[in-house]
Amino acid sequence: MHRILLRTVIFDYPGDVHDAGRDFWRIALNAGLRRGVKNPSTTRSKHPAALGSILVQNLNDGASRIHLDIEADDTDAEVDRLVAAGAVEVEADRRLDRARDPGGLLFCVVPAELDEGFAQFAHTVGS
Amino acid sequence: MHRILLRTVIFDYPGDVHDAGRDFWRIALNAGLRRGVKNPSTTRSKHPAALGSILVQNLNDGASRIHLDIEADDTDAEVDRLVAAGAVEVEADRRLDRARDPGGLLFCVVPAELDEGFAQFAHTVGS
Repeated sequence: MHRILLRTVIFDYPGDVHDAGRDFWRIALNAGLRRGVKNPSTTRSKHPAALGSILVQNLNDGASRIHLDIEADDTDAEVDRLVAAGAVEVEADRRLDRARDPGGLLFCVVPAELDEGFAQFAHTVGS
Repeated sequence: MHRILLRTVIFDYPGDVHDAGRDFWRIALNAGLRRGVKNPSTTRSKHPAALGSILVQNLNDGASRIHLDIEADDTDAEVDRLVAAGAVEVEADRRLDRARDPGGLLFCVVPAELDEGFAQFAHTVGS
């Protein structure tokens, strides 16, 4: 058994539209911006008009897309559970697992931030 | 001045993968499902492991994508504000406005559900 929570939306942009996308969502969500510490290609919205976290990421190339992060307090168990449910793992590294749902949409499984919100809203899953 | 809040994520799928996508996210987010009343092509997650609402929509064709709904208690003012910030309006009908951000990502502006969550988390924007 482990706990999971979806609470982060990430706007991924190629380099030619990244700044325009980031600046648009800052205004749209009435937010401040904070450059990512661990990942400088990522900008985090501060106090956006949103539930959860909003990130903007510079992918350099590819097409614009939105992806979601699922936080888990046991990422290995969560990836196993989601693969059993039909996800396809794309890539795993030290910090996160990338996968696609059965419709081809990208999402990530990331280590949970074990804060009050996670304690309050996470669901217990698995066996 | 009006109020806005982003709290709905919509998974849009073409018909051939819609059911698989819907069923995957039901399991992934440990949720129940409820068929949309106003829009029967839409399924709403019940009590998902997520902040905010998760919908799954059958688009019949096109590519899988994720889009977001911005709730506003004055949708006309909000669309005007977002167009001034760089959005491009795609389509407007009685129930919602579809637009694209400067990176080409689709989002909608929809009438706010004026519940406790909106009162608590919405931001006041505009002039």
